[in-house]
Amino acid sequence: MDIETYLREKKELIDSFIHTYFGAPIAPDILCDTMTYSLFAGGKRIRPILAIASYEACGGNGKEIVPFASALEFIHTYSLIHDDLPAMDNDDLRRGKPTNHKVFGEGMAILAGDALLTEAFYILSNYRHRSPHISPQSMLSLIREIAMAAGTHGMVGGQAQDLLSENTKPDADTLSFIHNHKTSALITASVRIGGILSNCGDEILAKLTHYGLSVGLAFQIVDDVLDMEGKTELLGKTAGSDKRKEKMTFPVLYGIDHSLKKAGGLVHSAINVLQSFTEKADPLREIALYILRRRN
Amino acid sequence: MDIETYLREKKELIDSFIHTYFGAPIAPDILCDTMTYSLFAGGKRIRPILAIASYEACGGNGKEIVPFASALEFIHTYSLIHDDLPAMDNDDLRRGKPTNHKVFGEGMAILAGDALLTEAFYILSNYRHRSPHISPQSMLSLIREIAMAAGTHGMVGGQAQDLLSENTKPDADTLSFIHNHKTSALITASVRIGGILSNCGDEILAKLTHYGLSVGLAFQIVDDVLDMEGKTELLGKTAGSDKRKEKMTFPVLYGIDHSLKKAGGLVHSAINVLQSFTEKADPLREIALYILRRRN
Repeated sequence: MDIETYLREKKELIDSFIHTYFGAPIAPDILCDTMTYSLFAGGKRIRPILAIASYEACGGNGKEIVPFASALEFIHTYSLIHDDLPAMDNDDLRRGKPTNHKVFGEGMAILAGDALLTEAFYILSNYRHRSPHISPQSMLSLIREIAMAAGTHGMVGGQAQDLLSENTKPDADTLSFIHNHKTSALITASVRIGGILSNCGDEILAKLTHYGLSVGLAFQIVDDVLDMEGKTELLGKTAGSDKRKEKMTFPVLYGIDHSLKKAGGLVHSAINVLQSFTEKADPLREIALYILRRRN
Repeated sequence: MDIETYLREKKELIDSFIHTYFGAPIAPDILCDTMTYSLFAGGKRIRPILAIASYEACGGNGKEIVPFASALEFIHTYSLIHDDLPAMDNDDLRRGKPTNHKVFGEGMAILAGDALLTEAFYILSNYRHRSPHISPQSMLSLIREIAMAAGTHGMVGGQAQDLLSENTKPDADTLSFIHNHKTSALITASVRIGGILSNCGDEILAKLTHYGLSVGLAFQIVDDVLDMEGKTELLGKTAGSDKRKEKMTFPVLYGIDHSLKKAGGLVHSAINVLQSFTEKADPLREIALYILRRRN
């Protein structure tokens, strides 16, 4: 399979859903502008694509869950907007473009994040988006899974610890807590919901969870290495910004070589756990490898 | 019936649920502290109580929906924390206490709001909270209703317009838009979910909606009058703060007397629409009157 084509095709499905979603008028106009500015600021849609690939790996038709998968991108985008705020990471650039608050002001950026998070749950609870194969109970599990991964026990908890840890001496436990919560939780949930929506059963779900945790951590490590190596154009944020803020990252703690070895091991483990899956899981396998290749 | 006793008893049920919710550990500690600081900063739990009273008016047992009703308080509290931020209304006091960001800093206050909003949807989707009378479909409708009222077409839309309208000349259409979205939407949704969860049917739901819209607007008008009259201790925020920011409010636009007449008419209309309801709707009737009495 050609993973580049796969990623492009799935991205088009997601982008198309998001465009349609904003076809209905939102008032005031600027609220719509600030949300779509960040939604279309160059994101690769990795989380929604993982959800679709996981659903397909369990035998489903990916098109059925495009709305639910897109809601993950709303949540990811909200987290980027809030993380970039002056009171948080204070970043001026994201994926090579001015951050949301630099364009729309802090107040409107906070509201854009709030709106994206809330609309995600509106989409996830919309019965109209449900295909006949998906039960209302599965939809509730989906919502709970995503809320868990995005809230205090996931993303927000990780960001709170990250904020507390700025300018402190790195230690392995804290770094692991931040990565597991801030990044891995939502990536793992993205993979898991493919399984949940296809009623895959506990054994398969455990394997998808292992895959998600491994790929999520590998993704974060590669991101931190790209930041340290200064590849602003690949990273899309101001390279070196972690170091300047004395952020606790994998390469800061373990060095670049050891970090990349660790990421390679995680990707290997993620692919390994999918051994019992058919060729329908090839996109999941290829996405894991793609995450390592981001460096080139 | 004694409305004071009713309000106290329901508030205790809600407070007890929230306390239990935070019984499970949340890391880092400060994230838990910042969320509970604002959740227990003196809120009267009007929205959850309206949901419970509405469920009872439709023949249900209010205790069954305490978790779902409490989620409304999580959402209301998040909106207060974010509204008070320097980039928004920049308020130092809320209900006579320092605002969240004054105590925990801006970054942690933004995260507290994000966490409260997300946890609300975790609670709402938690199948464990469902009584046997409530179907999974009703829970999905509940989530969609609340997400709609809290998002771009409700609260966030209203706050965005409010932010845009600071220091501009008041006009009736904009004022109406802000009130309907920023305050009435979530209050109306609170009343409606009592009907939705009891499968009350379209006719009853239309009446509850009328009640909610009327009471929601009356509530906002009385709030604005209290602000103008300078009753900080009743209002619980810095009185006169709207005027200082040249905020568009009902009394600014129409004067205090006309505003109070308008609020009285709305409360009358809210009670009137409940004529066909039994005495089980007495709490809804009394709450409408209570909103007017807040001034004394």
